[in-house]
Amino acid sequence: MAKETKVTIQDIAREAQVSPSTVSRVLSGNAPVVAAKREAVLTAIEALDYRPNVFAQSLASGQSLTIGVLTQRFGNPFYDGILSGILQALEPTPYSPIFGDGRWQTAVEKRALQTLLDRQVDGLIVVGGLSPEAEMLAYAQQVPLIVAAREIPGMSSQCLTIDNKKAAYEATRYLLEMGHQHIAHVTASIYYHGPITDVYQRYQGYVQALTEAGIQPDPQLLAEGDLSQQSGLMAVEKLVGRERPFTAIFAANDQMAVGVRLGLYRRGLRVPEDVSLIGFDDDHNTAYLTPPLTTVRQPAIELGQAAAEALIDLINGRQHTFDTFQASLIIRESVARRR
Amino acid sequence: MAKETKVTIQDIAREAQVSPSTVSRVLSGNAPVVAAKREAVLTAIEALDYRPNVFAQSLASGQSLTIGVLTQRFGNPFYDGILSGILQALEPTPYSPIFGDGRWQTAVEKRALQTLLDRQVDGLIVVGGLSPEAEMLAYAQQVPLIVAAREIPGMSSQCLTIDNKKAAYEATRYLLEMGHQHIAHVTASIYYHGPITDVYQRYQGYVQALTEAGIQPDPQLLAEGDLSQQSGLMAVEKLVGRERPFTAIFAANDQMAVGVRLGLYRRGLRVPEDVSLIGFDDDHNTAYLTPPLTTVRQPAIELGQAAAEALIDLINGRQHTFDTFQASLIIRESVARRR
Repeated sequence: MAKETKVTIQDIAREAQVSPSTVSRVLSGNAPVVAAKREAVLTAIEALDYRPNVFAQSLASGQSLTIGVLTQRFGNPFYDGILSGILQALEPTPYSPIFGDGRWQTAVEKRALQTLLDRQVDGLIVVGGLSPEAEMLAYAQQVPLIVAAREIPGMSSQCLTIDNKKAAYEATRYLLEMGHQHIAHVTASIYYHGPITDVYQRYQGYVQALTEAGIQPDPQLLAEGDLSQQSGLMAVEKLVGRERPFTAIFAANDQMAVGVRLGLYRRGLRVPEDVSLIGFDDDHNTAYLTPPLTTVRQPAIELGQAAAEALIDLINGRQHTFDTFQASLIIRESVARRR
Repeated sequence: MAKETKVTIQDIAREAQVSPSTVSRVLSGNAPVVAAKREAVLTAIEALDYRPNVFAQSLASGQSLTIGVLTQRFGNPFYDGILSGILQALEPTPYSPIFGDGRWQTAVEKRALQTLLDRQVDGLIVVGGLSPEAEMLAYAQQVPLIVAAREIPGMSSQCLTIDNKKAAYEATRYLLEMGHQHIAHVTASIYYHGPITDVYQRYQGYVQALTEAGIQPDPQLLAEGDLSQQSGLMAVEKLVGRERPFTAIFAANDQMAVGVRLGLYRRGLRVPEDVSLIGFDDDHNTAYLTPPLTTVRQPAIELGQAAAEALIDLINGRQHTFDTFQASLIIRESVARRR
């Protein structure tokens, strides 16, 4: 391979018996070339196993064929699903991704975004994040931009989101249909790390389902966590301490649901015999909890694929439309019918 | 920001009242510049909020300030920990990472590696992976290369590994010390996806601990999985079906341990009262299983940091040495003393 990278345009010209400028025209694809010469150049490229210098090409064409992807914390299962979808969709294209990690810290995110822009990416996919909306609008002026899993007012046609409210509504409806009346909700403060709107929308879906069923949402059945497992464990302590009866808990994410499950175990409460439990995310181990967790699956891979396809269309000035993505309830064994 | 990227070397020269070539010399850092002029240029860069064109700089200096990182499947908790460590270590440096994902498929990995090389990375960190050893040695001839979580014969000074055998030995020793004699092991075929040597080393550690304790390893207490949760569940069925008594199971990774735990629950076997269980990885939910899982924590973040630091030293021709990393047993509640 050391050999391959040393092949020059001159080598190809010699092999193809054409001028170097003909080779350049074929490589850039921007100028017409006689078919026979074009064929000779392509054959020579194949024979010499030539690999273009992407940087030099970039300066010449103005395209880097690189797409910047900003995520938040490698290891988050939902975001990693989106990254997998982006990778899958880019695989058959000439575009390659560069990843940055904002780690849910505004300053780190800003630097990571700038690093991607410095590398002259042709476009940017921002997954979640905390950048102020005005900054996001400014980025969108500067570079083709798609936002995944976050809604930015004023650029909704470039934002791919999941209908969190509807998904949470359906999860809560399921508990109601199973006969539960006293349903607790473990949420995360909407001001934690700025407005985490998806979690707030899940809270709204919970409230809507209760209200429609004629049940007044009880603030004593609402517990605040911070999306971590440990905060789910603490939420059980808060709820039990308030001495308000409940027979079901809907947690705003699976990590908190896992903590809730351990909190109930610590209190000697069985799932689902004593308390039914629903999570949100379909995190990678939750199908194997004891009992397997009923949860909401977000179409992360599909969302990532759609984001990559939308960005390529945007870069190339093509129209692109997409709908809001729908999550689906995955019924396992952590919810029992209330008698 | 659109403004920032348009600042040119000429603008800086005018602001600093020096020649453009002086600005270039300061930017490249390769030629001496009188202190006062250097100071004036840096002040002008600051005042104008100049951001260099990384691509143009790359062509001029021969450095891209970009580091390629090849991982296998975003979402793998151990590998994601390594990526986090790499990100942390690169943050205060001028180097930025580009990530590729080989998805544990040889052909995908090859293309992802080539994509990184095409972007003229200054160095490469390969985390795990399936590339044949001869190819890895060839890459190492071509570009500064560090391998994390995989040992390549012939380039061990560039490979950062965890002592898997010792960690598995200690996990098995712990079960022996707790009075267990009939200890099953859930492994993964070493020929699955090529030699997954870390899993094989864990098997060796298990065998060594038993042998030292005067216990002949029993092939009937060995079950093969494929590292997935589902395969852990199936392993319990295999072990139970063989009707050979066991009081403890050591699983070669946490995902299989999670499946084993559900398999035992399905069979009405309690953890740890009936069967003790140890995993490997300290996967992100295992501290919240019921009961919390005793497992082996691999120093993933530290390994990633060390890999990034070693690579920067390698790029800059500096000496670098490091030891094998040690994993540690995390004792929680899934192991009970055998009476």
